[in-house]
Amino acid sequence: MTLNSADSAFVARLADQLPEGVLRPADPRYLEEPRGRYQGQAGLLAVPHSTEEVATLVRAAHEARVPVVPYGGGTGLVGGQVMPEGPAPLLLSLEKMTAIRGVYPAENVLIAEAGAILADVQAAATEAGRLFPLSLAAEGSARIGGNLATNAGGVNVLRYGNARDLCLGLEAVLPNGDIWHGLSRLRKDNTGYDLRNLLVGSEGSLGVITAASLKLSPIPAAQGTAVFVVPSPQAAIALLSLARDQLGEGISAFELMHRQGLAFLAETMPQVRQPFAEAPEWCVLIELGLARGLDPEEALADLFEAALEADLAQDGVIAQSAAQREALWTVRETIPEANRLIGAISSHDISVPISEIPDFITRGGEAIARLGVGDMRINCFGHLGDGNLHYNVFPAAGKTRKEYEHLREDVKRTVHDLVADFDGSMSAEHGIGRMKTGDLERYGDPVKLAAMRAIKDALDPHGIMNPGAVLRQGT
Amino acid sequence: MTLNSADSAFVARLADQLPEGVLRPADPRYLEEPRGRYQGQAGLLAVPHSTEEVATLVRAAHEARVPVVPYGGGTGLVGGQVMPEGPAPLLLSLEKMTAIRGVYPAENVLIAEAGAILADVQAAATEAGRLFPLSLAAEGSARIGGNLATNAGGVNVLRYGNARDLCLGLEAVLPNGDIWHGLSRLRKDNTGYDLRNLLVGSEGSLGVITAASLKLSPIPAAQGTAVFVVPSPQAAIALLSLARDQLGEGISAFELMHRQGLAFLAETMPQVRQPFAEAPEWCVLIELGLARGLDPEEALADLFEAALEADLAQDGVIAQSAAQREALWTVRETIPEANRLIGAISSHDISVPISEIPDFITRGGEAIARLGVGDMRINCFGHLGDGNLHYNVFPAAGKTRKEYEHLREDVKRTVHDLVADFDGSMSAEHGIGRMKTGDLERYGDPVKLAAMRAIKDALDPHGIMNPGAVLRQGT
Repeated sequence: MTLNSADSAFVARLADQLPEGVLRPADPRYLEEPRGRYQGQAGLLAVPHSTEEVATLVRAAHEARVPVVPYGGGTGLVGGQVMPEGPAPLLLSLEKMTAIRGVYPAENVLIAEAGAILADVQAAATEAGRLFPLSLAAEGSARIGGNLATNAGGVNVLRYGNARDLCLGLEAVLPNGDIWHGLSRLRKDNTGYDLRNLLVGSEGSLGVITAASLKLSPIPAAQGTAVFVVPSPQAAIALLSLARDQLGEGISAFELMHRQGLAFLAETMPQVRQPFAEAPEWCVLIELGLARGLDPEEALADLFEAALEADLAQDGVIAQSAAQREALWTVRETIPEANRLIGAISSHDISVPISEIPDFITRGGEAIARLGVGDMRINCFGHLGDGNLHYNVFPAAGKTRKEYEHLREDVKRTVHDLVADFDGSMSAEHGIGRMKTGDLERYGDPVKLAAMRAIKDALDPHGIMNPGAVLRQGT
Repeated sequence: MTLNSADSAFVARLADQLPEGVLRPADPRYLEEPRGRYQGQAGLLAVPHSTEEVATLVRAAHEARVPVVPYGGGTGLVGGQVMPEGPAPLLLSLEKMTAIRGVYPAENVLIAEAGAILADVQAAATEAGRLFPLSLAAEGSARIGGNLATNAGGVNVLRYGNARDLCLGLEAVLPNGDIWHGLSRLRKDNTGYDLRNLLVGSEGSLGVITAASLKLSPIPAAQGTAVFVVPSPQAAIALLSLARDQLGEGISAFELMHRQGLAFLAETMPQVRQPFAEAPEWCVLIELGLARGLDPEEALADLFEAALEADLAQDGVIAQSAAQREALWTVRETIPEANRLIGAISSHDISVPISEIPDFITRGGEAIARLGVGDMRINCFGHLGDGNLHYNVFPAAGKTRKEYEHLREDVKRTVHDLVADFDGSMSAEHGIGRMKTGDLERYGDPVKLAAMRAIKDALDPHGIMNPGAVLRQGT
């Protein structure tokens, strides 16, 4: 399957099918990604205004065998949005398709175009007295189409699920340029294969999402936030069970933090106020969203008392105001920035079965130590309630990541091998993109991989959609 | 694609690869389905004990081009489990694969083999102090593999989702006999295309589910049940919004009932105690499952008061005991049996966007009346909170369905055309099976259908898996 460049002949062929301004040279910002690992090839940028224009573009690319790289907010962390090699691609940015097409509060449904910024989708839901619970650090620039294409996670997965769980239907342009009109507002519809979930998480390799029908939720009547010091990860998991027994689905987030992260935060951002004078080895941030008639502060106090009694907590801070809630969340949310400032040797977005986390943490520390340079620092933190840890390995104090560059691959391999031992995932929420195609081949189930390849070839026979993402070319 | 019969040569080839007793002639009960519309062809029955045996069987069928019909509990209502024509198939019943392979309460996960009866899965969860919320009339005989293959719905979808939303991972045998090991206990895993959701709802046409990793939930601390009389379907929807504002996710079920159903019940099963002396035109059954600290009866009383004030309810019964709760549910759950005893001309398992339901009901009544025989009776009831109505059309009092047989297709077409006008689904929870393949072609999105066909051909090139189900053969 040879692909062709989006050259001047391609532009000329398209020009009279599209309004002026849709096609333009690609600005350098479309060729970068946040981690700076990939430099996208210059290509043709298209900023269509409608689904029909997207279809025109993809159909032309299909006919001319030109690669298409769908572009959302550009916040992806695995290089899915930039194509560093091969013929010059057509970059398809949906930034002009940002309409909220409809809000249906009685149905808890909102329909948004794929280019809508996640924060704007959240705001439109709030305005209608509803919650769109997908929430993540990049929400101010990530676009909903990209969130769905990558099945984004974030801090509310424990309660509300991943992006796929928040999607009722899609409108999408398939690799041949056909438009699938699947913007269902239905909660139940058993009419054939689940094309929606196939596109969600396919990272632009099976088509371009142009709009989505999204599930809204009631806004919890009252929220509460606390940070409890726990004696161990094992205790953190038991605490989660205890909290569920007491509060059912009222737990919106349950985030693990380690002393190392708090230390990085103190070092790089001393202005961020920390909850404890002395940073504990392990603590958890608990967020509640409760129905009318329940007092979150009281519920958290009850939980703390029960946890103390069961030796599952040693100390705790329960926010007494919105400002205090925000302060606790700021600690959790600035840890990734502190990590960036310190500079990790290797970062890992992993998940393991929840009850295996303590064992994984122990064996992870041992395995990293066995690499022979006993001084690396580990910051393991994240969405404990989902089994999703950000497991980041850093240089010893006073050293730089450069000094460990030669170990980067070994560290990554060590962590991912261990994850595989635990039947875990080496990409819990960020996806495969171009960064993890090798990992997918190494750790993925071969039968699943063969099925994926068959599906890709069936729906995109020329291989134009985001070549090299998810599945390597020529494999 | 010509398929061959599961003949004696096929049996002979398989015999030495399988333990004795796995292969047998198919008992007549495997050739029937609950509605008596389809008579399955006699074929070879296989009752494998393990996933490896399933793989051996499917691989042999793949090589010999023999059709395979997966068989669960046999409770499906659209003929997906019986193949009435073509070469004698291999019937694959997973009734010997019923193990609960593991329960992980701290993770809210349970792993069951596909042949486990739904009620046994529920019981295993309960034993571990957890809830497996999938609940439907056939739960005493339906098997979890079939529930997943058909993406079963039921009464708790409003709160917990459909079968697909309760599944974390699958083990399955693909049409070439390969085993996909995808029994993930992970909540987050973004490593490639969503094969799980592709198999869920594919009704055995893309492979055979052999085991599933299932999501459990906390058991609500307290449950409550009420039936409120509402002035109209519009009021019922407004009442649902009001209830959500007050109780958030605490609403487990919200079921609409019509006077016609209560009248059928009184006529056919007078022993079932009804909540109101005079059957109201419309009423809703509300089920709450609340967290600790909330009293469901009090919450329902508060809701009733607010509803009364807003003219959304006119009368109500709030259960004061488990026995009373059960009595209210008995009314809802025996309506389908009453319908069967009366004998519908045509039944429809449909969904429309929730806020369109009142308009749909009005226009449905008008359209049926326009068919020229103004005396047909309509019983419209079901899962209002999911937009999923069972819309059943009956003979006039004193007449039999036989007298309307010539109208059956017209009635069905009228209802389904109207559903299509409302962007609804003509199969909300029962699936396509063999009964609705024509409807799928008529009402389905052609782009989606083409994609489905491409996926089917890619994964099952010889077309052996449940031929004629979901997609018609030769289309």
